[in-house]
Amino acid sequence: MPSQPEPFLLINFKTYLEATGKKAVELALKMEKVGNETGVTVGVAPQFCDIAQVAANVKIPVFAQHIDAITPGAFTGHVLAESVSAAGATGTLINHSERNLRLPEIERAVQRAREVGLTTVVCAGTARLGAAAALCEPDTVAIEPPDLIGTGRAVSKENPEILTDSVKRIRNVNSRVTILCGAGISTGEDVYAALKLGTNGILVASGVVKAPKPEAVLLDFCNAVRRLA
Amino acid sequence: MPSQPEPFLLINFKTYLEATGKKAVELALKMEKVGNETGVTVGVAPQFCDIAQVAANVKIPVFAQHIDAITPGAFTGHVLAESVSAAGATGTLINHSERNLRLPEIERAVQRAREVGLTTVVCAGTARLGAAAALCEPDTVAIEPPDLIGTGRAVSKENPEILTDSVKRIRNVNSRVTILCGAGISTGEDVYAALKLGTNGILVASGVVKAPKPEAVLLDFCNAVRRLA
Amino acid sequence: MPSQPEPFLLINFKTYLEATGKKAVELALKMEKVGNETGVTVGVAPQFCDIAQVAANVKIPVFAQHIDAITPGAFTGHVLAESVSAAGATGTLINHSERNLRLPEIERAVQRAREVGLTTVVCAGTARLGAAAALCEPDTVAIEPPDLIGTGRAVSKENPEILTDSVKRIRNVNSRVTILCGAGISTGEDVYAALKLGTNGILVASGVVKAPKPEAVLLDFCNAVRRLA
Amino acid sequence: MPSQPEPFLLINFKTYLEATGKKAVELALKMEKVGNETGVTVGVAPQFCDIAQVAANVKIPVFAQHIDAITPGAFTGHVLAESVSAAGATGTLINHSERNLRLPEIERAVQRAREVGLTTVVCAGTARLGAAAALCEPDTVAIEPPDLIGTGRAVSKENPEILTDSVKRIRNVNSRVTILCGAGISTGEDVYAALKLGTNGILVASGVVKAPKPEAVLLDFCNAVRRLA
Repeated sequence: MPSQPEPFLLINFKTYLEATGKKAVELALKMEKVGNETGVTVGVAPQFCDIAQVAANVKIPVFAQHIDAITPGAFTGHVLAESVSAAGATGTLINHSERNLRLPEIERAVQRAREVGLTTVVCAGTARLGAAAALCEPDTVAIEPPDLIGTGRAVSKENPEILTDSVKRIRNVNSRVTILCGAGISTGEDVYAALKLGTNGILVASGVVKAPKPEAVLLDFCNAVRRLA
Repeated sequence: MPSQPEPFLLINFKTYLEATGKKAVELALKMEKVGNETGVTVGVAPQFCDIAQVAANVKIPVFAQHIDAITPGAFTGHVLAESVSAAGATGTLINHSERNLRLPEIERAVQRAREVGLTTVVCAGTARLGAAAALCEPDTVAIEPPDLIGTGRAVSKENPEILTDSVKRIRNVNSRVTILCGAGISTGEDVYAALKLGTNGILVASGVVKAPKPEAVLLDFCNAVRRLA
Repeated sequence: MPSQPEPFLLINFKTYLEATGKKAVELALKMEKVGNETGVTVGVAPQFCDIAQVAANVKIPVFAQHIDAITPGAFTGHVLAESVSAAGATGTLINHSERNLRLPEIERAVQRAREVGLTTVVCAGTARLGAAAALCEPDTVAIEPPDLIGTGRAVSKENPEILTDSVKRIRNVNSRVTILCGAGISTGEDVYAALKLGTNGILVASGVVKAPKPEAVLLDFCNAVRRLA
Repeated sequence: MPSQPEPFLLINFKTYLEATGKKAVELALKMEKVGNETGVTVGVAPQFCDIAQVAANVKIPVFAQHIDAITPGAFTGHVLAESVSAAGATGTLINHSERNLRLPEIERAVQRAREVGLTTVVCAGTARLGAAAALCEPDTVAIEPPDLIGTGRAVSKENPEILTDSVKRIRNVNSRVTILCGAGISTGEDVYAALKLGTNGILVASGVVKAPKPEAVLLDFCNAVRRLA
């Protein structure tokens, strides 16, 4: 059995104004600080236009929110893996429920990311689709039931059996992939519950980004991670 | 009758490797130099991830290649007008033939761009659609017949009646909008012909970006503009 | 000035179960009966799979709800103009707000429909987009503000200035096109108001299809049309 | 181990003019005749508008080429499972490479088909995606490498290892699903090779539909099936 990957908390900045432009850099710095102080691995996923500035200012993992399944060429307005990497990102989300891809694009996007050295987090909304995503051999699968995204009702508490079932189905087809849990996570309790159910970390957006004190929420999350260690 | 806008040459970097990352900045600097030396207004449209670095290094107009018709919020992997603007872009392409939008998205994207102060260039492939685009009241309409894009066969020479017809139809519904011409432009002659047919400038990609010496091609274009002045 | 086209009431069956399969045929027969009794021109737009059966059973105009901008060939799962026509439809909706097309597809779909002799109704959600649609030279433009669709709050009463503005903008670019009004229409009063504002008829769905007695609602609509004649 | 399903040959009519309207019915009748004469199970997948007429004229399985992942409601221009079923189809293709779905739509479309009693054939272009499709628990997975579709170069001869690998990966996650093979199949030899490699049948389009004598090609296919029995 492979050794357990260390817990990972990934903060998705979405297109929130609270995390756009200078505020993206400021928020990333706050996230980095909490990660450093607690020893927990924290990453951020800012908007495309903010990747370069964020990556220039923090040493934590920086993810794109999406890449297109394209090679260099005539693809005006698309997102090229090489471009994301050149800007300083070390990974990318793929197939987030707000940016779902057609099935063959997922496989190609994972391959394109790998070719340029980007870590991949493929999102899926159900246990079955989590396993399907795992078959594309990304580094990580994130389980995010779309109905709970942005609700503050955590999947790990509202619907623990989705996570249990996801972990089982994913492990059945891919023993190495890392598993994140998302949707509705807003407290350390939610994080603790998710890790206890067999996931390796959290994908979170509004629960941190839209909080009055994002660094306080992240600290709560990180302390929950440490309780488990 | 409104005074003629000064000619504008906009270089679309697409997702060409020759114009990604550091090479985007280098190419933008070369374009700026030719523009400065000839006194012709030149703009560049790099990939999203390169906007910030390009805008930090040049004083010419920097355009995004696309924005989504969204307001700030939960739109992972999308392109927010505010984000593009914060990165230093002053304008954006909309509805490029490689990134066509659904009809209502065009109107909303133009409105979103205007709200944050971005100049808009809406692309269209036919005379009729050029007029439809002009009804959305962008700053500029770019006529680019998709069949000629990337061919080196210039619309202004291969198909001058498309441009004449486009100018007529566009002016019929919108007397103020600037009109660019694209697709297949690769020589100063092509540029000269396009301006003579009543357009106000050029949208070009491979003709410059993929040329062995992009600055030489742009110089040829700029000299053609000056011949007309 | 062209003579006023006679008023037209088009009933969109959407994918309502009340108008699927045998119920599509039954509903179309009821609609035909009311049209015949009142002398008002009534058309129906059933689902693709129901077109043949509906067209075989009624003599009123039968519309498809959408066609794809394709020519015959390898387009599995798409809707070919020739196929819709062969099944007995005489017209088609294009770009309904629930099936928006990319801008160049609208122009091509209108051309494809014309090539096979189908009457075209291009939908648009705003006055400006109504004019853009009219530039593609369909037979008819239908103005349907998406916010009001299915609400029972009629555009002709809630937002009469959208209709006035639409009629003005559309007529400015196309003097011949027929103009329908949709969204929220549920009473004869709504129909009367729409025609008084300069439109030539109505595109309606839930207001008729989901009514306890669709034929009674349509009769109310038709009587409103006759009041104006 | 489950008993081997009997071989199945499914003819996709795409949007070929040779298989539109009356010609769809005629072609389906020819296909039925060959199936009856040889005792091989043959199905046809006509366009949406032709399903009712085809199903009324043949007793063989009739498939839709696509359904949307929707429930009854306001989905103008979409394809409802109930509608396809009411027209007489007994199954449907899902996610054909010419009509790829976003990942969550595949799972939902399979569920919708099952709810109304339609047999499902989910298409995939690679071995890995074939397994991902199998996780959605359709009745059948069809492996069709997009590069070979319509070429007359059969996947079973050009690229047998894709089929071997697909069968292995699919069986690894789903022991019950039927496996079809498609792309480039045009002779009985191709069919024979495909079945020998462990698939349970064929999905074919141009190889039959565009042939001068479709019934002769299908007879060749059916004889190849019988050689194996």
